[in-house]
Amino acid sequence: MSRETDLSAEAKVAERSPAPDLEDLALDEDYALTAEFVDMVIDAADRGDGPRLAELVAALRPADVADLMGFLTEDYRAEVVPHIPAEELAEILTELEDNIREEVLEIVAPATLAKALENLESDDAADVVDDLDEKKRERVLAALPAQERSAIEASLAYEDETAGRLMQREVALAPQFWTVGQAIDHMRSAGDALPEIFFDLYVVDPAMRPVGAAPVSRIVRAARETPLTEIMEPVTEIPVDMDQEEVARIFDKYHLISAPVVEPGGRLVGQVTVDDVVGVIAEESEEDMLALANVSDIGRDASMIGIIRSRLPWLVINLVTETVAVSAIAIFQDEVAKIVALAVLLPIISSLGNNASVQTLAVAVRALAQRELNAANTWRVIRREVIAGIANGLALSLIIGAAVIAFYHDGKLALTAGLALMADIIIAAIIGILAPLALERMGRDPAVSSPIIVTFTTDFVGFFALLAIAAVIMV
Amino acid sequence: MSRETDLSAEAKVAERSPAPDLEDLALDEDYALTAEFVDMVIDAADRGDGPRLAELVAALRPADVADLMGFLTEDYRAEVVPHIPAEELAEILTELEDNIREEVLEIVAPATLAKALENLESDDAADVVDDLDEKKRERVLAALPAQERSAIEASLAYEDETAGRLMQREVALAPQFWTVGQAIDHMRSAGDALPEIFFDLYVVDPAMRPVGAAPVSRIVRAARETPLTEIMEPVTEIPVDMDQEEVARIFDKYHLISAPVVEPGGRLVGQVTVDDVVGVIAEESEEDMLALANVSDIGRDASMIGIIRSRLPWLVINLVTETVAVSAIAIFQDEVAKIVALAVLLPIISSLGNNASVQTLAVAVRALAQRELNAANTWRVIRREVIAGIANGLALSLIIGAAVIAFYHDGKLALTAGLALMADIIIAAIIGILAPLALERMGRDPAVSSPIIVTFTTDFVGFFALLAIAAVIMV
Repeated sequence: MSRETDLSAEAKVAERSPAPDLEDLALDEDYALTAEFVDMVIDAADRGDGPRLAELVAALRPADVADLMGFLTEDYRAEVVPHIPAEELAEILTELEDNIREEVLEIVAPATLAKALENLESDDAADVVDDLDEKKRERVLAALPAQERSAIEASLAYEDETAGRLMQREVALAPQFWTVGQAIDHMRSAGDALPEIFFDLYVVDPAMRPVGAAPVSRIVRAARETPLTEIMEPVTEIPVDMDQEEVARIFDKYHLISAPVVEPGGRLVGQVTVDDVVGVIAEESEEDMLALANVSDIGRDASMIGIIRSRLPWLVINLVTETVAVSAIAIFQDEVAKIVALAVLLPIISSLGNNASVQTLAVAVRALAQRELNAANTWRVIRREVIAGIANGLALSLIIGAAVIAFYHDGKLALTAGLALMADIIIAAIIGILAPLALERMGRDPAVSSPIIVTFTTDFVGFFALLAIAAVIMV
Repeated sequence: MSRETDLSAEAKVAERSPAPDLEDLALDEDYALTAEFVDMVIDAADRGDGPRLAELVAALRPADVADLMGFLTEDYRAEVVPHIPAEELAEILTELEDNIREEVLEIVAPATLAKALENLESDDAADVVDDLDEKKRERVLAALPAQERSAIEASLAYEDETAGRLMQREVALAPQFWTVGQAIDHMRSAGDALPEIFFDLYVVDPAMRPVGAAPVSRIVRAARETPLTEIMEPVTEIPVDMDQEEVARIFDKYHLISAPVVEPGGRLVGQVTVDDVVGVIAEESEEDMLALANVSDIGRDASMIGIIRSRLPWLVINLVTETVAVSAIAIFQDEVAKIVALAVLLPIISSLGNNASVQTLAVAVRALAQRELNAANTWRVIRREVIAGIANGLALSLIIGAAVIAFYHDGKLALTAGLALMADIIIAAIIGILAPLALERMGRDPAVSSPIIVTFTTDFVGFFALLAIAAVIMV
């Protein structure tokens, strides 16, 4: 939860900013940073005009400053960082992409950083500290007040990408026997112990296990003497070690705004709020998309080395598997030499097989991520994919057969092409659904290695089918 | 905003349910429906055991009933629908995927439906009504109280997938001169005019333009005499015609919980809340992923016809473009007949070119969706892609060259393969970034037609380069 800091920082900016026009210029009607504004920043940096840089940065909200950093190259970022007001630094750090954040963290002094972190909720502060190298981390933690330091250390004790890391430890709590009036009095006096903004007051039993949640908007409307148990709702408990992708799916499914995070015994240890989850959803589905395109995840404005590292290994693997796949062609070299039309048909068959398998694969990966595929419907889904494969294969085979007759006036070649394509499309459907299912069953990410597996399979089968059938019925 | 109905419905279920064990059985530790439970439903339906079906359905929350429907085939869904308690029907309808919802809506009587809709917020009710056919829609609207009917009609007047459709018209409002005490008194007396659950009280000027938002959790803690303007925060206004994808991006960027929706003059007409946005984010990135895999978006448990319709047209287009691409091979038939090794190399070159272009494409589509790519960094990004392409191309060319020498002991063939692969990988980088940029500039969805364009280009260039180079240096 970083909304509060965000918005109050923005209010400060509005007071300070000398040219309100700059703000209008910075963002288009969709609140996206404009190219003109980025150019103004680059111009100012080129001229070494510090005051202008400060003015430009001051016109932006923290999320927009983070966005600006992504549009700049490393050199320009180094020019901008000194002009970020200290009180906004913490918020901006939480907004930056990992690779850019690491870069900025190297520039900022530990004492400045410690001061900035005090303004953040425990989850955001832990995220920032996690990115520091060992030495700097120790110095920053040492510079923090004991209470904040232990909150951050507790957060870091949970594994990355789990509910424990996603949650904030600041929670509004009340015992079961309280009335609305008692709850309001408590909230008024609690001060800093409460989150800056919250949506639910968790009602807990004496063992600190959540028994319900009273929405604040309901508390504010209820009579003071109403027992909290009367206006509370059931809660959806999140185990502290749950993967953040699961947490996001549950928030999406049940339309949750906040949920209590519990330890194995059921004790409440924090809460996850929906605004943290929004980022996770965007992140996780991007990861799947990039994985299906054979790209390892990298940050924004990554270095050239980073880009190459995220792609070249996959291309090399592809080269190796494809070399194996074309061995099917090498086996039938004589047939190809005799009937050169086969060389023309080979890429068509493999391209279509590939396309069909990736279609099935994408649908299956999505269904697995959404938990829409389990033992209850696996066989039905597989059967459906195979039947769809047969139908699509039939339709495409007729088209390719007709095309071959039109171009080559050769019925046998048309039959060969049709049968091979048919076989490849059906295999594409089968491998497209089985590969992600098998990977998931093995506890692997179904999006990550599936594309390589299905490409290899459809290529090999396509090549082999076309040439073997040709060898039997044509040569 | 449907959270309230959701949770209160769940509370009812908990009271009613005779076997609490069923609930534990229904969901695994990640709150996903278990295969065992789905099988129990299918068993009960097979036996025609109505009471058991009712019991099983009663053990689920609305979102889980919707999930269950997705696991069942159409016949089983028809068996389950009559056992859904009337008071839960509305909530379940909002949770169903479009294609399944249409099916269920056909079964339910207009009067029952009208009654169910009264329990929903205006945005959710409009969504359901929108799915009805003309005739049924009129009958349902006629059966609704005038106020609800006009709210739904107003919502339907906005275009699909805009902020106007996403927003709810129920909003908590206060004039600028009110104190916290006045606001609390108003909220206590307002009753049904307010949303069931809300997070911000919007402060508006006399022209109903939002000037700020007071978080409810801050209202509850402030002294009664505090002016609202003192505890309010700046708002991020959402234009009523903004695309829902943009709305989602803005919520993600600024970590918003709710935002006022305004007409062109600035008048407040409703609010979007983050729980509605969570669904949009998941939806939109899924759409991109499926588009990149050449699948038109279809709902869950789509019919066989639906599946074929979402995929076959893309495969046919692929067949046509690939037929054009292989014309490059047809031109050089003589060379292929003389050097059959070329037929073996062709698929390797095209597969790698394809893979490289899809990598670039996926990264570009993601960056465009996140608004991380604009005139300020276009040239830098293109230059970076091309340089990465040259680097990856060089590395891969050396590998393929070495492989060709190892297998064929032919230096000229190795040079041919290396040069062709190099050319194709560079073209792949260029087309992978230019295709989505050009489509975006033309106002088209960059994810939708790009894969076809890049596949055609890399295949054609790969084939042509390999064979033309071979014709020059080998034959």
